[in-house]
Amino acid sequence: MNISHIEHVGIAVTSLDEAIPFYENMLGLKCFAIEEVADQKVRTAFFRVGQTKIELLEATADDSAIAKFIANNGGRGGVQHIAFAIEDGVANALAEVEAKGGRLIDKAPRKGAEGLNIAFLHPKTSAGTLVEFCEDPNK
Amino acid sequence: MNISHIEHVGIAVTSLDEAIPFYENMLGLKCFAIEEVADQKVRTAFFRVGQTKIELLEATADDSAIAKFIANNGGRGGVQHIAFAIEDGVANALAEVEAKGGRLIDKAPRKGAEGLNIAFLHPKTSAGTLVEFCEDPNK
Repeated sequence: MNISHIEHVGIAVTSLDEAIPFYENMLGLKCFAIEEVADQKVRTAFFRVGQTKIELLEATADDSAIAKFIANNGGRGGVQHIAFAIEDGVANALAEVEAKGGRLIDKAPRKGAEGLNIAFLHPKTSAGTLVEFCEDPNK
Repeated sequence: MNISHIEHVGIAVTSLDEAIPFYENMLGLKCFAIEEVADQKVRTAFFRVGQTKIELLEATADDSAIAKFIANNGGRGGVQHIAFAIEDGVANALAEVEAKGGRLIDKAPRKGAEGLNIAFLHPKTSAGTLVEFCEDPNK
């Protein structure tokens, strides 16, 4: 697979309203979008930093992956996943990981925030870190 | 402050020897340096992804921050911190955070891996995520 850059870093927060002022007022970044992703039960806020976006994630239900991450993290937020931009396609990259014995959460790409095609690897394959693959279908 | 990009993402791992093959063999990234940072009690491995580096961190002592992170994370690795490249200097950026009421772990820049000047903010200020500021003194 060909990874061009880190597409985004996904950061779990207990409250977008409390977290956004840190990124805007202290770091001087600009929130350019707030989006709800219903099937992931999250509300997201995006900031651009060079090639990469920061995606803040707030749970909208107790059974969302973000609510579980925060519960397992002593009630605190933190970096929940890292997403790589795949130049030669997410489906190809998933096939490569499987062929090399890796485990997947998503067997095929699905739609994520911002209309990207995304898929997650199983953290057992990626040394504990939740890793996402992304591609922009309009590129 | 002026943040140009994400300098690196710091990922705690239980073992560099087990984690490096995921990044090299599955993701196709190349480990370009392995470095021990004695005063942080870690061994690090670096990979380049576009503008950003991935810094894998293995504890070299039970009282290292990485060992504590892994213990608090159910024995698993994960993203421990995110580091921003500050164009107008880490000392300036720290002063700005303090002036705005933020808390710091490091009151002044100190030397980190790769000879960078670095400082950490207190996670209470940054909505739970451990945030590092970096500058390259040779630029």
